[in-house]
Amino acid sequence: MRQATHQIFIATHGKGFYEFTREVEAWVDAQHVQTGLLTVFCQHTSASLVIQENADPDVVADLADFMTRLVPEDTGLYRHTAEGPDDMTSHIRSALTQTQLSIPIHQGRLALGTWQGVYLFEHRERPHRRTIVLHLLAD
Amino acid sequence: MRQATHQIFIATHGKGFYEFTREVEAWVDAQHVQTGLLTVFCQHTSASLVIQENADPDVVADLADFMTRLVPEDTGLYRHTAEGPDDMTSHIRSALTQTQLSIPIHQGRLALGTWQGVYLFEHRERPHRRTIVLHLLAD
Amino acid sequence: MRQATHQIFIATHGKGFYEFTREVEAWVDAQHVQTGLLTVFCQHTSASLVIQENADPDVVADLADFMTRLVPEDTGLYRHTAEGPDDMTSHIRSALTQTQLSIPIHQGRLALGTWQGVYLFEHRERPHRRTIVLHLLAD
Repeated sequence: MRQATHQIFIATHGKGFYEFTREVEAWVDAQHVQTGLLTVFCQHTSASLVIQENADPDVVADLADFMTRLVPEDTGLYRHTAEGPDDMTSHIRSALTQTQLSIPIHQGRLALGTWQGVYLFEHRERPHRRTIVLHLLAD
Repeated sequence: MRQATHQIFIATHGKGFYEFTREVEAWVDAQHVQTGLLTVFCQHTSASLVIQENADPDVVADLADFMTRLVPEDTGLYRHTAEGPDDMTSHIRSALTQTQLSIPIHQGRLALGTWQGVYLFEHRERPHRRTIVLHLLAD
Repeated sequence: MRQATHQIFIATHGKGFYEFTREVEAWVDAQHVQTGLLTVFCQHTSASLVIQENADPDVVADLADFMTRLVPEDTGLYRHTAEGPDDMTSHIRSALTQTQLSIPIHQGRLALGTWQGVYLFEHRERPHRRTIVLHLLAD
């Protein structure tokens, strides 16, 4: 058994979902693993991780709209407003989704379901460079 | 140290919580682990995972009701409606709970608290066969 | 490769966020790990885990307020009321945040982002002693 770590950088340009399943799979494939565990970790508190359906792009658009309604961008509701109207809402939306995901590697491939994709959920309007840390436990 | 993987299949018959703590514990017990880490992964985006109190069944009933109020089944709110009124709400309810859980094995047993149970949270009304992938890291 | 487990106990005195990043880092540092994976597991269903910004304390105060609005403490909404008006809301707030977090150890340190802190999110008003189980996979 062995471990490996890696970093993926994602350039975001506004709120929404950025799929990076292929980047993750490409790195895992290059490690030639039969059985293992991949951990995906987001080093930010105003962007987060979600596994969602990647067949119909309307799914993540609807999910983004839901989060906009659920966590209103109304600065009257928050103390933490110095970084802009979309900062505190970003922290809340991150807390309601994931900072980390672990995915088994089973029979030589990442055990994602047929329509599961791995997404960065960007909560800030301005462009950001997001860092995702990958950790692999492998046979 | 070693790894093992396994699959659990859960037949669901409508929305709600399906506890499968015993199935998980039975498999882990059969591996005779003193120290380890168990990862439970749900291969779906319209069903999810939750660790909740399993002493009083009213807890998961109230949690299901809360999620019904929070994520209204009103197709006027969503673009993704072709798969029925309970499909987009399923994706949102999944995103707000968990696709994956990792539980330490400490002193020979799964480190769940006294009243913690592991549940599949089914969000679709029609019967489904759900696949849960288990990954075990063991001494 | 090797494993280690540990427990951290947190005495809470009312609802809110209790940061324990330093306790986690101190234990990990004492293990002298270059590459690894740390799993933090909360053995409760009325307290949970969140990674959030620890630069401005207003962030977790605003997050606590949001959760108070989102999950109203109105016993008319719930069946499970025997343990007090803040018990069922605690279960719901736990389900919407995390029971478990896994954090890679990369280049000799826990791969938290610059402003990421690890918090226990206590949902009960009365004092509690909370148990957090740590599991470490290390080189």
